[in-house]
Amino acid sequence: MNVNICLIGKGIVGTSLIQILLNKKEFFERKFNINFVVNSIIEIDGALINSQGIDLKEVIDIKENFRRLPYWEKDAKFEDITSKLNIAICIETTPTNPKTGEPGLSHIIHALDNKIDAVSSNKGPLYLEYEKLRKLAKLNNCYLKYEATVASCVPTLGIKEALIANEIISIKAILNGTSNFILSRMTTEGINFDLALKEAQELGYAESDPTLDVEGYDAAGKLVILANELLGWSKKITDVQVEGISKVSSHTIELANTDGYVIKHLAIAENNKLIVTPRLIEKHSPLNISGNLNAMELQTKYAGPILLIGRGAGGFEAASAILNDLIYISKRRGYIT
Amino acid sequence: MNVNICLIGKGIVGTSLIQILLNKKEFFERKFNINFVVNSIIEIDGALINSQGIDLKEVIDIKENFRRLPYWEKDAKFEDITSKLNIAICIETTPTNPKTGEPGLSHIIHALDNKIDAVSSNKGPLYLEYEKLRKLAKLNNCYLKYEATVASCVPTLGIKEALIANEIISIKAILNGTSNFILSRMTTEGINFDLALKEAQELGYAESDPTLDVEGYDAAGKLVILANELLGWSKKITDVQVEGISKVSSHTIELANTDGYVIKHLAIAENNKLIVTPRLIEKHSPLNISGNLNAMELQTKYAGPILLIGRGAGGFEAASAILNDLIYISKRRGYIT
Repeated sequence: MNVNICLIGKGIVGTSLIQILLNKKEFFERKFNINFVVNSIIEIDGALINSQGIDLKEVIDIKENFRRLPYWEKDAKFEDITSKLNIAICIETTPTNPKTGEPGLSHIIHALDNKIDAVSSNKGPLYLEYEKLRKLAKLNNCYLKYEATVASCVPTLGIKEALIANEIISIKAILNGTSNFILSRMTTEGINFDLALKEAQELGYAESDPTLDVEGYDAAGKLVILANELLGWSKKITDVQVEGISKVSSHTIELANTDGYVIKHLAIAENNKLIVTPRLIEKHSPLNISGNLNAMELQTKYAGPILLIGRGAGGFEAASAILNDLIYISKRRGYIT
Repeated sequence: MNVNICLIGKGIVGTSLIQILLNKKEFFERKFNINFVVNSIIEIDGALINSQGIDLKEVIDIKENFRRLPYWEKDAKFEDITSKLNIAICIETTPTNPKTGEPGLSHIIHALDNKIDAVSSNKGPLYLEYEKLRKLAKLNNCYLKYEATVASCVPTLGIKEALIANEIISIKAILNGTSNFILSRMTTEGINFDLALKEAQELGYAESDPTLDVEGYDAAGKLVILANELLGWSKKITDVQVEGISKVSSHTIELANTDGYVIKHLAIAENNKLIVTPRLIEKHSPLNISGNLNAMELQTKYAGPILLIGRGAGGFEAASAILNDLIYISKRRGYIT
């Protein structure tokens, strides 16, 4: 069965998704008898449009020169094309704007308003307007999925179905790979924050403006999504009490180490409170993950702690989470039988 | 909605399940509008039967004296009562017989033959007759779920749905809490295998006959189930190459330690092979879990490694996995709307 897809954003995540859709075309046909037909790829200044399906190999091969393709329509916008194209699922992968959530927020609202199921790897709209989007999806009888927004490929949201009878009491997580990398390097190398940050930037793990990562706002946004999804809360990012890691000194880390502890930047949801803050954890705790991994520990009523660990970032990692969401929707819509 | 349940086995897992069903009665009614009515509890020498639903509180309160209850029917068997009682789901929790899988295997076959959905915490039937049971369930259009058989409450099987578009390439896991506890103690305390085993037995982690645990057969059985479920294989326990941990010496552990490694009893599924064996892993590997935890690392094509960690045993832990299976079936059967 053909399922028409609109991809919004051709950055690292969008391009990785195109690559995987291409690689896995046969796998999807064989395993699920489904064919995802990308009929539009939207960028900030126009769109690639082919109602019969874009040749994804051509798009990959031409790399950054995709605007030269004959089916590039300058200034075309998502909001303009939905009435002309038959779109079953829209995939929103534009960069997160932490203040407004735009343009992702408008894209998702427009999709839902037009009865188009939506998948988002952009977390801004979710941590800013979770309740509004959830209600809008329900009102329009649409699916809105966003596994990639938290810990990328790690199924921090999808695991909910597998734990459906469990009462999840609290969440303790490491949700930002950059700040975890910095703390890990400070711990193992004894270097100070500034040096570790510089290293992270040189390796491409940290942005030139690392504020969102090291000051905890990125983790706070993800924590909001986790808590709303897994604990059934209705929080916004402004409800999170946030403290970054820039004040953590080598000396503090050394002191902790002497007594068998390490310092981690934890995102915690418990007792109706959301907190992102540097905290001591025991060296032997499974949460003591190194490098740019992400981890989530769920405290459950009858099953104790359950932990999930994996890569928290990366184009292919996010694209793989998006694909899981696509299959999830396709199963429930009956595109897959 | 009322859903009639037959519970087979009133051991630690069965009793924990009764306790949780009692505790969560209101929660299930409120959250899912479902009422699990246990109309039969089967033991080796008879059964508690009440077609209107057994008073679970009474069963818990009377503890080991349940055979004195007026609705105890001596010598009643599961196979005899299915025609008389309306049973939607049967829950098999008898102890694992690693050679024959009985009586669990016959219970599950009888349930499926009679169009009764089945949930099992007994792994023997699954690792001995996986293909047969899978086909029988399909033939009878029944659900057969067994989350509790591998790593207890940790959703090692249920995570499949959350990773449905991922290509899982290989599995590396620690699936036996007893052997992991013994290796952990040998590592941290520098004691030898015999002493660590004795300690595990005194703490109740190891059986008086620890062969199944320390020689790797328990882990091998679980590995078969994991590989068949997550990789789509059709293996039996006889396909597993097994080596236990009883030959691991303190000296070996010391040597490994010097170079930053620890020895873990790994269950590995890759390249169409199943292996349970002691292996070196890096100290900083997230698989370096201590105590009686279980862990599973899935290697995926686009998302790298994804890890799940949690308690691998315990009555309430297994019961919580059974409950998730119950809800899974109830959703798909439309008992939950």
